[in-house]
Amino acid sequence: MINVGVVGYGYWGPNLVRNFVASPDANVVTVCDRDAGRLQKVQALYPAVEVTTSAEEMIADPRIDAVIVATPVDAHFPIAMAALKAGKHVFVEKPIASTADQARQLVEEAAKRGLVLHVDHTFVYTGAVRKMHELIRTDAFGQVRYYDSTRVNLGLFQHDVNVLWDLAVHDLSIMAYVLGQTPVAVSATGHTHMPGQPEYAAFLTVYFSGDTIAHINVNWLSPVKVRRTLVGGDKQMIVYDDNEPSEKIKLYDKGISVTETPEDVRKVLISYRTGDLWVPKLQELEALSVEAAHFCACIRGEEKSLTGGEAGLELVRILEAANQSMANRGAPVEL
Amino acid sequence: MINVGVVGYGYWGPNLVRNFVASPDANVVTVCDRDAGRLQKVQALYPAVEVTTSAEEMIADPRIDAVIVATPVDAHFPIAMAALKAGKHVFVEKPIASTADQARQLVEEAAKRGLVLHVDHTFVYTGAVRKMHELIRTDAFGQVRYYDSTRVNLGLFQHDVNVLWDLAVHDLSIMAYVLGQTPVAVSATGHTHMPGQPEYAAFLTVYFSGDTIAHINVNWLSPVKVRRTLVGGDKQMIVYDDNEPSEKIKLYDKGISVTETPEDVRKVLISYRTGDLWVPKLQELEALSVEAAHFCACIRGEEKSLTGGEAGLELVRILEAANQSMANRGAPVEL
Amino acid sequence: MINVGVVGYGYWGPNLVRNFVASPDANVVTVCDRDAGRLQKVQALYPAVEVTTSAEEMIADPRIDAVIVATPVDAHFPIAMAALKAGKHVFVEKPIASTADQARQLVEEAAKRGLVLHVDHTFVYTGAVRKMHELIRTDAFGQVRYYDSTRVNLGLFQHDVNVLWDLAVHDLSIMAYVLGQTPVAVSATGHTHMPGQPEYAAFLTVYFSGDTIAHINVNWLSPVKVRRTLVGGDKQMIVYDDNEPSEKIKLYDKGISVTETPEDVRKVLISYRTGDLWVPKLQELEALSVEAAHFCACIRGEEKSLTGGEAGLELVRILEAANQSMANRGAPVEL
Amino acid sequence: MINVGVVGYGYWGPNLVRNFVASPDANVVTVCDRDAGRLQKVQALYPAVEVTTSAEEMIADPRIDAVIVATPVDAHFPIAMAALKAGKHVFVEKPIASTADQARQLVEEAAKRGLVLHVDHTFVYTGAVRKMHELIRTDAFGQVRYYDSTRVNLGLFQHDVNVLWDLAVHDLSIMAYVLGQTPVAVSATGHTHMPGQPEYAAFLTVYFSGDTIAHINVNWLSPVKVRRTLVGGDKQMIVYDDNEPSEKIKLYDKGISVTETPEDVRKVLISYRTGDLWVPKLQELEALSVEAAHFCACIRGEEKSLTGGEAGLELVRILEAANQSMANRGAPVEL
Repeated sequence: MINVGVVGYGYWGPNLVRNFVASPDANVVTVCDRDAGRLQKVQALYPAVEVTTSAEEMIADPRIDAVIVATPVDAHFPIAMAALKAGKHVFVEKPIASTADQARQLVEEAAKRGLVLHVDHTFVYTGAVRKMHELIRTDAFGQVRYYDSTRVNLGLFQHDVNVLWDLAVHDLSIMAYVLGQTPVAVSATGHTHMPGQPEYAAFLTVYFSGDTIAHINVNWLSPVKVRRTLVGGDKQMIVYDDNEPSEKIKLYDKGISVTETPEDVRKVLISYRTGDLWVPKLQELEALSVEAAHFCACIRGEEKSLTGGEAGLELVRILEAANQSMANRGAPVEL
Repeated sequence: MINVGVVGYGYWGPNLVRNFVASPDANVVTVCDRDAGRLQKVQALYPAVEVTTSAEEMIADPRIDAVIVATPVDAHFPIAMAALKAGKHVFVEKPIASTADQARQLVEEAAKRGLVLHVDHTFVYTGAVRKMHELIRTDAFGQVRYYDSTRVNLGLFQHDVNVLWDLAVHDLSIMAYVLGQTPVAVSATGHTHMPGQPEYAAFLTVYFSGDTIAHINVNWLSPVKVRRTLVGGDKQMIVYDDNEPSEKIKLYDKGISVTETPEDVRKVLISYRTGDLWVPKLQELEALSVEAAHFCACIRGEEKSLTGGEAGLELVRILEAANQSMANRGAPVEL
Repeated sequence: MINVGVVGYGYWGPNLVRNFVASPDANVVTVCDRDAGRLQKVQALYPAVEVTTSAEEMIADPRIDAVIVATPVDAHFPIAMAALKAGKHVFVEKPIASTADQARQLVEEAAKRGLVLHVDHTFVYTGAVRKMHELIRTDAFGQVRYYDSTRVNLGLFQHDVNVLWDLAVHDLSIMAYVLGQTPVAVSATGHTHMPGQPEYAAFLTVYFSGDTIAHINVNWLSPVKVRRTLVGGDKQMIVYDDNEPSEKIKLYDKGISVTETPEDVRKVLISYRTGDLWVPKLQELEALSVEAAHFCACIRGEEKSLTGGEAGLELVRILEAANQSMANRGAPVEL
Repeated sequence: MINVGVVGYGYWGPNLVRNFVASPDANVVTVCDRDAGRLQKVQALYPAVEVTTSAEEMIADPRIDAVIVATPVDAHFPIAMAALKAGKHVFVEKPIASTADQARQLVEEAAKRGLVLHVDHTFVYTGAVRKMHELIRTDAFGQVRYYDSTRVNLGLFQHDVNVLWDLAVHDLSIMAYVLGQTPVAVSATGHTHMPGQPEYAAFLTVYFSGDTIAHINVNWLSPVKVRRTLVGGDKQMIVYDDNEPSEKIKLYDKGISVTETPEDVRKVLISYRTGDLWVPKLQELEALSVEAAHFCACIRGEEKSLTGGEAGLELVRILEAANQSMANRGAPVEL
């Protein structure tokens, strides 16, 4: 049994606590939050769990093997770093930290100490994203040409981060996992509703070392909620619609054939082909429950985190570059 | 009655001929095409219409008041220019010409001679786009923040033009009409399936002089057909879905309120609001029939073309700038 | 404060307890269930609520003003009757009882004693059904011609009741409320997957004294979940789609005009008309919370139950008649 | 080449003429209609086709091998009978005749003379219905439990026939083909908007000799257009949505397992199972073109009509029984 302590019981913390409590691999020793009212809720639901308002105390507790960090983003770095320095494994909410520099320090600290540093890119643990990862890797799919995601809704306007850091972070974590390619440059554009405010709408293009492009459209000011990703392969294509209650992944047997004409290599003949559509049944486990089991297996040395510190770092590097590009109306930024 | 001659009876020509034949304002004198088989079809359907393989001859015909140009794009300029020089009014397919320079020459020639130069931005004459134009202009809509269009499908790969010139041209013509704002810069990214081939996917951002942004996502390699535009105003928002058979325009009574906090002007409070949804009944006339009547009224001096040469020129300027930006991975290009 | 006791903490009971606990008008004194494990859950969530395995004891408790009955259907009658005889107001799950005869006894007992007998036809307290009720009553709607509901999914096969008693009960309760008409006869057909088993699919027509017809299609063996009701008026029509997350009610400004021809009264001219579509924003309160407040107001004498014992009785009468008709392949049964 | 004559060039006639003209197997000799204006259209489109206003003359023409009857329903019988008596094969619109008695006479006359009598149940020749027929016949589908179709829209009110004869006729023809079972009884209910007028809405249940039930819901007064059929098998289920532009047939790998409990045969355990969804690509040929080829092959003796006179007769028998049941509020009528 791995003993965990959880810092932060705000929006996402309750889901983490619920899943780690239910996990056969873990034991939630302590929940920490500055708000006493939240701690009362913890006690009502989980009488056996201890509560505290002091993260320092919890990190120092020798019973605790791993610290789960579910605080606002700017507290990720100090708490995760303190936990690593105290020899604890760390499970931190996304984005891993506020800057790539902080993320790099966490990665190095965890590596130096041989500790697990896991970032909660939750979507990677959903049945839908797992299936997409599996389908894209088959020969039947052909080369992945593009990844195009739209994630828009009428949402809470954030004051501290823009819509890329709030919404595109999900797409970037999914994209990194399912494509497994190295991004080399980004171009981003966006819009604010008032000068000096964070962008509410943003459009991000990511170039990869291989012959693939990704595009992400995020918006807090959309009348309708769209959660749709298209992935185009040469031989098959996927539509991933997270709004669908169960038919989230659709695999289209559609594609193109490219034939070079013998007389003139500059001219190619492109034909396209349409076939059946297949909607696979997806694993229905709650993503966080899968992820909790995975984190525990990583600590036991049986698995390697699919969304470890390096993945968290890469994501923050892209977001930083995107912010820089957006400030210059799409001017490309190399990674 | 305005006597017209039509050059080009390929993909779009038959629709033009059918609508001008049916128009009470016009009389189709001649149809011209290089392909004799196509001309036979004209004769079978419209025994009273003359046919010819010579555009020069048709342009020289003194009976003809106006020439309709429905040829491939690279022939737009020479034929339209010859027609203007022969004193004929011109109705030309979009894009008006292959380059902004050519477009400018056509605009100047028409102005010099006092002739109508009309570009067939057909969508502007649909009931849906007319209604969108009307709704956006009301006080109830508030300031237009963004215009975001997705136009993707598994389509014919073109050899001579990229997907921006094939598909985004529609969005640009609609956007110009409904926003009525001056674009000042663009950033575009895109992807080709083979080096040297035209881009099959492209993502275009247009900045305007006012506080509005536009984004257009076009793709020939999508497993599903999407034709959806979101327009976000402060007080209302529109979803325009051209795939819907009749409920194409949805007006959402949703928006945001921005309140500056008295103590700190950098902090603003943003709240959002959701209300009813309204789907107006749209005019069901065929767009080309409305457009044919409008063109005739322009020739009679009663109306001014909504999509005249200047509109066609601006559209080509944006496309040229987009191509340049796309070649530089999104680097912004001022207009 | 009205003191309530709840009998039954199975599928629906937890929702009832949660809403009555949260109600400012009520105080949950005791929860009763035969299953000790369920009672432990009650104690963990609501430490202040007492628990018991004896319904008799709870009914006899002088502190309790009202008894909420959320047991299996066959226990509704004995518990509700015992509660009424003990002078308690009663809130009972639907259907009110297993037979019309039992329902009638409950109605009479409550009337005799001047107690509130309320049946939990929950849908009547949703924003969607309230809005439908309001719209249908306007002059703009015209005469209601038909009410046609489809409620199908791949669902739990029940052993004790057929699909009419499981699913159509919802439609009948909604229909009774929004139409406010008197049903006069039914015809029902259905199908079992094995002889002697309850019908998994059933098709029910209800005739009314006024010139309206209702039809209900229910099925436990459908590959897709459909929750759609059409209501056709002369001047307007409604689509109520309960699967939609927020746009549940759509009001279509469509209808017909009937004109008698002067020369021949047997011939009428019918034309139809289509106009705008309007999707009203709905009240978002949880139905049970609205219903709990209503029940308390009924006890205080301020309101009259919208879904009282008589409504529950009428619903059971229709279900009994439908069973009889279904056994005779649709032979009509007068009510 | 089979020489055909077509009687009736109203709503459907033009489609028939176009497909038989395009057929490599047939030659359209003559088109007959009482309306001279319609005949002018025929001449403009097909200069080689002769026209006449006299059906008698056309039927008597010795060059003609087969007569296509696309008149109003009440003229089907006299014209088809005259054609058969003149030794012509007959292709008649649905329903085959106004009464089962007339239909029976046509079947007998054709049989006596060894002529092809084909009824235009067009849907049977669509790719969607063909695929449904194929899927239902596999072992993987399991026993067909039910067939449930909804076909509603805001449509033209007919004066001479009710909505069953106008719309349910399509479902009955599809159902007969894909189920291939013998109907034994019907129950129908319906509603008129004015006394003495044809029913605008009707609900029809068909019982079969095997253990299957069918239900058809048709309505001219629906605000939305629905064209959806559910077919439930024990192991798989189909949704056929004719409104979908291409994904019309969806095969769900869902079903139930029924296990008898050893101790008590009256109790059965029913569990259900959900798996993948598969959307097969459909043949895209126009149904009438497939049907024209089939009719010609029948005349050449190479095929047997899939929708011959017997199928047409059965359909009219069901419609007559449904009318009778509807007049008695659902009272069952044996076939």
